[in-house]
Amino acid sequence: MRFRHLTPSSRIRITPYSELIDAQGATSFTSYNNTLLATSFKSVNEVYWHLRRHVQLWDVSCEKQVEIVGVDAARLVQLMTPRDLSRAEVGQCLYVPLVDDSGGLINDPIVLKLAEDRFWLSISDSDVLLWAKGLAIGFSLDVLVFEPDVCPLAVQGPKAETLMALLFGDGVSELKHFQFSFFEFKGYPLLIARSGWRKQGGFEIYLDNIELAGILWESLWQCGEPLEVQAGCPNLIERIEGGLLSYGSDFNNRDNPLECRFEKYCDIDNVSTFIGRESLIKQRDVGITRRLMGVSFSGDPCLPLEKRLGVFDGSFPIGYVTSAVWSPSLKNNIGFVMINKSHWDIGTDVKIEVAGGREEGCIKDPPFLVPPL
Amino acid sequence: MRFRHLTPSSRIRITPYSELIDAQGATSFTSYNNTLLATSFKSVNEVYWHLRRHVQLWDVSCEKQVEIVGVDAARLVQLMTPRDLSRAEVGQCLYVPLVDDSGGLINDPIVLKLAEDRFWLSISDSDVLLWAKGLAIGFSLDVLVFEPDVCPLAVQGPKAETLMALLFGDGVSELKHFQFSFFEFKGYPLLIARSGWRKQGGFEIYLDNIELAGILWESLWQCGEPLEVQAGCPNLIERIEGGLLSYGSDFNNRDNPLECRFEKYCDIDNVSTFIGRESLIKQRDVGITRRLMGVSFSGDPCLPLEKRLGVFDGSFPIGYVTSAVWSPSLKNNIGFVMINKSHWDIGTDVKIEVAGGREEGCIKDPPFLVPPL
Repeated sequence: MRFRHLTPSSRIRITPYSELIDAQGATSFTSYNNTLLATSFKSVNEVYWHLRRHVQLWDVSCEKQVEIVGVDAARLVQLMTPRDLSRAEVGQCLYVPLVDDSGGLINDPIVLKLAEDRFWLSISDSDVLLWAKGLAIGFSLDVLVFEPDVCPLAVQGPKAETLMALLFGDGVSELKHFQFSFFEFKGYPLLIARSGWRKQGGFEIYLDNIELAGILWESLWQCGEPLEVQAGCPNLIERIEGGLLSYGSDFNNRDNPLECRFEKYCDIDNVSTFIGRESLIKQRDVGITRRLMGVSFSGDPCLPLEKRLGVFDGSFPIGYVTSAVWSPSLKNNIGFVMINKSHWDIGTDVKIEVAGGREEGCIKDPPFLVPPL
Repeated sequence: MRFRHLTPSSRIRITPYSELIDAQGATSFTSYNNTLLATSFKSVNEVYWHLRRHVQLWDVSCEKQVEIVGVDAARLVQLMTPRDLSRAEVGQCLYVPLVDDSGGLINDPIVLKLAEDRFWLSISDSDVLLWAKGLAIGFSLDVLVFEPDVCPLAVQGPKAETLMALLFGDGVSELKHFQFSFFEFKGYPLLIARSGWRKQGGFEIYLDNIELAGILWESLWQCGEPLEVQAGCPNLIERIEGGLLSYGSDFNNRDNPLECRFEKYCDIDNVSTFIGRESLIKQRDVGITRRLMGVSFSGDPCLPLEKRLGVFDGSFPIGYVTSAVWSPSLKNNIGFVMINKSHWDIGTDVKIEVAGGREEGCIKDPPFLVPPL
């Protein structure tokens, strides 16, 4: 694997936690929403096993918020997605694929409904701010659209609930999955959600008072010491095992939600107002010709992909692998594959083109591993 | 300076030139429009002096194009900018600041007018595609907005014209600054502009036939051997010396074009239709309170900034440095500073907060160095 240095630049924002993350030995980073995101600490494997057993703090400040507030806020949010939000409740988090006029995926934020007329879109890696603003202006909607200064900190792993309860009281335990509420910290209300970019349960603290970042981290660290707390980051192995897709890697605006198996977030018939509806109806009626599935494949442990891998039936290209990793639990390479209809059935054998030649692959239905919780 | 590895990820696109750039010893990279951009090769100083004397090939595939085509194309482009485009001609390149409804800067692309109803916006680092699409949909404009597969290759340095003429014929020499035309290469028409993110003159080849990338690079390399051609990249030293701003580093959507001294691109009175006009008129009438200026400062050679540096008058904060670098030509640290009105006059002394303490700074009027051409 080729090593590249990431050039320091004020264009890629450091976060209120960057120094703390550095001190914990983060070695490798990415730029996500033009913000630094650590991606590994020392040994990837050690961090993976630690995450499955204990509790970690993740600096996910790169999950930027797009705030939409005003009389037409709910209308604008619904314009952007085929998911029916009419019954969404204040205090709820919702996974919401956003599509453009041709049905292409623009982002897949978690929407936090803060009030009937106020939402945060906790975004993946594209400028939803510009999309939402462009629509608001074009449609003359009565809303404000802006990026508040929020730096989420994730507390993840099987002991996350224990740690959170130590610091914020037993109330946090009552939060259901994908619910949020406010909890006091040093006299200041913090928005805390039971959520996180993983499958084993955890919390995200949407810190909007950056002054508190250091003391929040320190307090979590102290409470977490008996629980063997460590610094961590969204874990590639664990996310692929858990079947979690990553915008930009696994799908982008050239893919639609039907191809990405987001049917359960596509209330195409009930929601009459969203942009891209006509395109998605056409796609559904004509039928899609490829689908994002799981794949396992043989060979040496796979390193993080720098580009997509070709998938073949003999010499015939039938798709591409979007992300892949070696699973220490399954002792196999696993990943996601955008695969043609002819080969998308579970159990189909395919060939994967890797640097050294071709490996034997098999189409799977993620998640690859269901956590014990 | 802390070294960070850039994590390989299919979310950050490699380019048709990445392997060639790697082979030439690129060491440090950034993610720009979710695309790999090399930022240094071996010694930064050597590359700098080479650029000032010879000719370099830069992989600037990260300069993505947003194509806007259709009956309402000119109307949409004009909606996005205060610059008067009514007299723009086909074949012209124009530097065009884009602003949002509050006058905040969204991007500063080079607009290429391909036809009366067809434009490319060659963008800096933000998703103009989403902004343009959102507006087009909201205003029901009769346009297509999409990202064509174009990978610009820059040929830069004082010998660029000689090299380009060797490969494409003397016709390229007739291109005026910020003009483009089509030149045949292997039977295929290539869009070539006299432009580039630097001040010493050069060309950009907007390659839209990716299959030709390897042979194009190879041909330029062979023709360039007697001219001492090397691989290079947008050069931080040279861009700051030349007074060129970088979106995301030096300004962003919290800054407006008056603060950034883009007055000559702001035909606020003549252009009645652009978004943000009311805000900019208000800003102009009330008067701005800070401005993006140059600054020189004492101390050890400055490394690329990871975050903005505070600027002070005694203990009183009066601004911040957005980018800075050691100039080997001027033997001084130079950079850009967003500075309050009280201190924005050229020649004003200020204090710059650096890691080791405070340095003596002086407000300047860029460019710092005017190239001999």
